[in-house]
Amino acid sequence: MEDLYPSRRSHEAMMSPIKDPVLYRPWTPEAPLTAGQASRFEREGFLVLDGLFTDEEVRLLQEEAARLRTQAQVLDPETLITEPNSSEVRSIFAIHQQAPVMQRLASDRRLVGIAEFLLDDRVYIHQSRLNYKPGFRGKEFYWHSDFETWHVEDGMPRMRAVSISVLLTENDAINGALMLIPGSHTTYISCVGETPAEHYLHSLKKQEYGVPDDVSLATLVDQQGIVVAEGKPGTVLVFHCNVMHGSNGNITPQPRSNAFFVYNALSNRLQAPFGPEKPRPWFLGTREPQPITPQTGLLTEAVKR
Amino acid sequence: MEDLYPSRRSHEAMMSPIKDPVLYRPWTPEAPLTAGQASRFEREGFLVLDGLFTDEEVRLLQEEAARLRTQAQVLDPETLITEPNSSEVRSIFAIHQQAPVMQRLASDRRLVGIAEFLLDDRVYIHQSRLNYKPGFRGKEFYWHSDFETWHVEDGMPRMRAVSISVLLTENDAINGALMLIPGSHTTYISCVGETPAEHYLHSLKKQEYGVPDDVSLATLVDQQGIVVAEGKPGTVLVFHCNVMHGSNGNITPQPRSNAFFVYNALSNRLQAPFGPEKPRPWFLGTREPQPITPQTGLLTEAVKR
Repeated sequence: MEDLYPSRRSHEAMMSPIKDPVLYRPWTPEAPLTAGQASRFEREGFLVLDGLFTDEEVRLLQEEAARLRTQAQVLDPETLITEPNSSEVRSIFAIHQQAPVMQRLASDRRLVGIAEFLLDDRVYIHQSRLNYKPGFRGKEFYWHSDFETWHVEDGMPRMRAVSISVLLTENDAINGALMLIPGSHTTYISCVGETPAEHYLHSLKKQEYGVPDDVSLATLVDQQGIVVAEGKPGTVLVFHCNVMHGSNGNITPQPRSNAFFVYNALSNRLQAPFGPEKPRPWFLGTREPQPITPQTGLLTEAVKR
Repeated sequence: MEDLYPSRRSHEAMMSPIKDPVLYRPWTPEAPLTAGQASRFEREGFLVLDGLFTDEEVRLLQEEAARLRTQAQVLDPETLITEPNSSEVRSIFAIHQQAPVMQRLASDRRLVGIAEFLLDDRVYIHQSRLNYKPGFRGKEFYWHSDFETWHVEDGMPRMRAVSISVLLTENDAINGALMLIPGSHTTYISCVGETPAEHYLHSLKKQEYGVPDDVSLATLVDQQGIVVAEGKPGTVLVFHCNVMHGSNGNITPQPRSNAFFVYNALSNRLQAPFGPEKPRPWFLGTREPQPITPQTGLLTEAVKR
C-alpha cells in the first residue's frame, strides 16, 4: 500500500498539506453537531463540548475511574503505564474491554454519533485509555500528532479517525490540561529519524521518535497560537487525529484525569505498519475491528439494568 | 544566634505561623504603594504591578538580557547555570555586578523605594539574576519558599527581604510563568531531611532538599488556590521572601525571561548558615552588603549619559 504520509525516514523534517478531508460528510440539520461546530472543527481541528452528560453520569464515570486505578491489580498488567521514575499509574489502556461502564461510554450515541458524522462511516475503537496525571509530580507530554504514530507504528492508512476525550477532573492551564495548536491538523509534519523496534515500551512514557522539529512547531504556533482545553468534569473534547497537541507537567496538588477513545472509520482499518515491521500490541491499536452499535439513554440507567 | 525558622532537621514536616511582620512600616500617603496595594501584599504576599517602566526602558532591558545570554563567555563562569541535560543558559547570577544596565535597574527608585517601604530599612542586593526558561524544553521549578533556602543555606536570620522580578517576555499560564499560593507567606514550612554539603551545585538545576511536603502544600492551596503571575514585558512582580511559588515546564515555542533582584534589609544581613557549616558562594548570597542609594530618572537616560 502506498505510504501517503511518510515520516521518520529522512534527515530533514517536512511540512505538507494533508491528503484527506477533515469533514467526510457535508453538514445537514440531522448532524449531531451544529453547523457552527462542524465548520469550527473543520477550521481548528477540535471542539470543546459542555453538558453532554448529566452530573450523575459524570459521577459514575469518576467513580469507575477511581475504582480502576485503585484496583489496577485485577487488570491486564500489559495495559498499565506508570509515570517515569515512579510506580504511579499514568494510563490504563483498553478500558472499553476491561470495564463495562467504559464499554458503555465508548458505545454511547452522544460520542459515536459525532464520530460517525465526522468520518461518514461506521466506526470502531482503535484505542481506548484512562489518562491520569497525578498532582505534584505529573510529567509533561511533548507536542505530537497522534496520527503520525498510528500511521508509522500501527499502519493506519488515512486520516479518517477522531479522538474523543471525556474530562473527569477540572482541567485548566496550570494542571497540565491538553494544549492544542488550532489549524495544525491540516499540515502533516514528517519527523526526523527512524523508529527503533519495540519503541512503544518507552514512547508511552517519554516520546523520543516521531517528535516534530522546533521550526515546524514554531511555524504552526505563529499562525494560530495555542489553545488550552480547559473545562469542568464531563466536558468532552473532540479532536482530529492529526492536530498537534501536548501538555505541560503538573506541580499543582490537583490531579488531572480523562477517559479517551479513538474512533476509526471501518474503511480505514489497520494495514502493515509504514515504519517498523512489527505492529504495536493489541491494546494500542486493534487489528480486529468490531463496529459499534450506538447505545441510547443514560449511562446511569444502563448500569442499573 | 537562635534559629527562629528551623528546617531540614526532622523526619516530619511542620507548618507554623511566621514570627516576623509582613509590612514593617505602617502605610502613609508618602508610601510608594497605594493603601490597597500595601494591604494586598500583606494579605497575599505578592503584587503584580504594571506600567512602572516605559516601553523604551523595557526594550533596553530586553536588549541587555539578550546581549548577556549571547555573550555569556565574557561573564564569570561560576555565575552561569545551564538547563539540566543541556548547555542552554537558564540563569545568570550577580547581574547587578556584571552589567551596568542591570546595576542601574537594581538601584532604581521605583524598585528600591518599594523594598525600603516594605522592609522599613535601607536595603542591599542579597542576590540578583537573569532567569531564562527556553521554549520547547524549559523545565519546571518545584514549589519552594526562597527564605527557607536563604535561611538554612545562607544564614539569613529573619524574614525581612523581598524579591522583585521584572518580566522581560510575555508570561502566561502555559509558558511556565511563576505560580504563587496567595497567603502562604504567613506560614513557615519546616522541610524534612538534611542539606548535603555543596548542595547548591545541584539545587539550582533541580531542588532535592528544602522541598515542602505534599500535605503542607495541599493545605496551603486548599485555603487560597494558586495564582499565575501573568503579564506583558515590563510587568513587575513583588513577592515576599516566604511566599510559596514554583513554575511549570515550558513546551511552547515562547521562551520566558525576567530580571530578578532580592532586596534584604541592612539590619538582616547574613549570619552563619543555620544548616550546613559552609555558606553558599558570593553570587548566591552576598556577605558584604552595600546599601543602595536609590537612583531617579529613566534607565534610558542613565545609559545615555
